[in-house]
Amino acid sequence: MKIAIYGYGNLGKGVECAAAHNADMELTGVFTRRNPEDVRTLTGVPVYRAEEILAHKDDIDVLIICGGSATDLPKQTPALAADFNVVDSFDTHARIPEHFAAVDAAAAQSGHTAIISCGWDPGMFSVNRVYMESILPGGTTYTFWGKGVSQGHSDAVRRIEGVVDARQYTVPVAEAVERVRNGENPDLTTRMKHTRECFVVAEEGADKAAIEQAIKTMPNYFDEYDTTVYFISMEEMKEHHSALPHGGNVIRSGKTGLNDECSHTMEYSLKLDSNPEFTSSILVCCARAIYKMAQRGVTGCLTMLDVAPADLSPLSAEELRAHSL
Amino acid sequence: MKIAIYGYGNLGKGVECAAAHNADMELTGVFTRRNPEDVRTLTGVPVYRAEEILAHKDDIDVLIICGGSATDLPKQTPALAADFNVVDSFDTHARIPEHFAAVDAAAAQSGHTAIISCGWDPGMFSVNRVYMESILPGGTTYTFWGKGVSQGHSDAVRRIEGVVDARQYTVPVAEAVERVRNGENPDLTTRMKHTRECFVVAEEGADKAAIEQAIKTMPNYFDEYDTTVYFISMEEMKEHHSALPHGGNVIRSGKTGLNDECSHTMEYSLKLDSNPEFTSSILVCCARAIYKMAQRGVTGCLTMLDVAPADLSPLSAEELRAHSL
Repeated sequence: MKIAIYGYGNLGKGVECAAAHNADMELTGVFTRRNPEDVRTLTGVPVYRAEEILAHKDDIDVLIICGGSATDLPKQTPALAADFNVVDSFDTHARIPEHFAAVDAAAAQSGHTAIISCGWDPGMFSVNRVYMESILPGGTTYTFWGKGVSQGHSDAVRRIEGVVDARQYTVPVAEAVERVRNGENPDLTTRMKHTRECFVVAEEGADKAAIEQAIKTMPNYFDEYDTTVYFISMEEMKEHHSALPHGGNVIRSGKTGLNDECSHTMEYSLKLDSNPEFTSSILVCCARAIYKMAQRGVTGCLTMLDVAPADLSPLSAEELRAHSL
Repeated sequence: MKIAIYGYGNLGKGVECAAAHNADMELTGVFTRRNPEDVRTLTGVPVYRAEEILAHKDDIDVLIICGGSATDLPKQTPALAADFNVVDSFDTHARIPEHFAAVDAAAAQSGHTAIISCGWDPGMFSVNRVYMESILPGGTTYTFWGKGVSQGHSDAVRRIEGVVDARQYTVPVAEAVERVRNGENPDLTTRMKHTRECFVVAEEGADKAAIEQAIKTMPNYFDEYDTTVYFISMEEMKEHHSALPHGGNVIRSGKTGLNDECSHTMEYSLKLDSNPEFTSSILVCCARAIYKMAQRGVTGCLTMLDVAPADLSPLSAEELRAHSL
C-alpha cells in the first residue's frame, strides 16, 4: 500500500520513521505548505507543495494528515476526504463529534474511508475504556496521564510575560494510582489525581515570583492542581528537557457474582520515550486498517472504536489465529 | 436481546450473573445434559434438557456455550451453530485453527454468526498482543500468567497416587516482569518466567516425598519449572484455597525513530478474583457483539480479533464518541 504524509512537523517525521518499520507500506511523498525546497526529509522521500496533491492521487492509497487539532485538522481532514482515504490524530476531545460529522459527510459523499482521532488518548486509551466498560459494567474508569510533557500546558506557560522557554510535566499521584489499582473505586478530585511540574527559563531580571504566581493561578490549566515551578537555565532546558516523553494508565475495576462478591482490576499502561513518535506509529497501523476496510467497501468516517484489531495487523486472519490468539 | 446458556458449571453460573449486570439482555434459559430437576439456578432462570433446545429457538438470539475445551466444545459449537448464533470460550491454543474451521463451516452454511475462544487468554490477551504488535513491529511480546490457579495443573496433581486434593498456583517471576517492563527485551526460558506452587492434601500415611517427586518431575506440567510443594490439611485447603483467582500481563516494548532512538513499553494487566466469572463477563459482551454483527448480515465464525470494540458495548456509536473517545 502507498501512503503519503500531509504536514511535516514532529508527527509527520514520526510517520516517516514508522512507515520504514512496516514492510507492507511505501511512503510516496510528503506534502507541505512550506516551500518544498526548504524541507529536507529524514529518509529522502520527495517533498511536494500541498496544493499539488491532486496530481499525485494515484500514488496515495491512504493520506496521513499530520496537522494540529486547533485549526489545521478541522479544515484539512474534511477537505482531503473528498479525494483521499485519510487518517488524522484530532485530539480535542470535546469537539470530536463535530469533527466526526464533518469528515463523515465528506467521506461518505466521495466514497472514501476516513479514520479520525487516532493515537493513544484519544485512541488506544479510548479503545481500552470501551473494552473495560463493556466487560465489567458498573464501577468507574480512571485515566492517569504522565509522567510526561503536556505541550498545551508548556505553550501556556511560554505565553506568560518574562518567560523565555518552558516545559510542563503532568505527573500522576502515585497514591491515587495505587488506590485505584487496589479496586477501591475512590472519589478523586482533579487535584488528587495529578500534579504539575513546570521548568521555566526566565528573562534576565524578570520577576520570578510574579511568573510563579501567574502559572499557579492560571484558570483551566493550573488553578485546580498542585503545581511546582522550577527556574532553570536555557542550558539545563536543552540538556534535560528536550525530549517529549509521556504515558499513562487506564484502570477500571468492577464486580461480578450474584452479590458482587468478586472484584477484578484491568489496566492498560504506556511508558513512552516520545509522544509524537508513538502516536505516529498508531497513525500508520490505522492507515493499514482503513486501506483494508476501504477494499471491503466500507466508506465514511470511523474511529479506532470501529476497527477490529485484526485490521490493524499486517498478518492474515489465519496467521493471527495461529500465532496471536 | 435474548441469550441462553448451554452447560451449567462455573462458567455457566458466571454467565448467569454477568447477564444480570447487563440491562440490554434477557437470559431466557439454561440448557443442561443433567436432569433439569436436579439443577437449581442462582437467579431462578428456567432449566431445560439440552436435547430440547430446538423447541426454544425463538427465545434465543445468541447461545453461550459453556462446555469444556477438551471434549465438549469441539462437538457442541459446530453442531449448535447449525441453528443458533453461538459464543464459546475454546481455549486449547494449538487447536484453535481446527476448531475455527469446523465452526466456520457450520455457521456459514446455516447463515449464523459464531465467535470462538472468547475470554482473556485466548481473548483479551490476544487482542492486546495484536494491538501491540501492529503498533510497534519488531521486538518481543511477553505474556505472564498469575498469580493464579491453573485448573489443568491442579487436576494433574490430583491424579497422583496418594493425593486427595490439590491446588496449583502459577506465579510470575517478579524480576523477569521488571526486566520486560524496563524494555530490556530479555531472552527468558520457561523456568525464568514462572514458578509453580502446589498445595496438596495427602492421604493419611501417604509417601509425601514420593508425591513431591512425582509432581516436580511430571513432564510438560512441572519438569521445566521450579516448583514448591506444600502439604496442608483438608481444612486449610477449604479455608484458603477454594477461590479461583487469576490474572497476568501482556507486555511489549518496541523502538521508533530513524535509528530506533526511542523506546516505548505497552502493558495490559489483569488481577482477577475469579477466573471463570471474569471469562463469563467477556462471553456476555461477545454475545452482544455477534448479535449486532448478525443483524448487519455478518455470518460465519469470528474471534475477538475480528470484532471492533464498539460492537462489544451497549452504547451507541454516538455515545461512545462523545463519552469514551
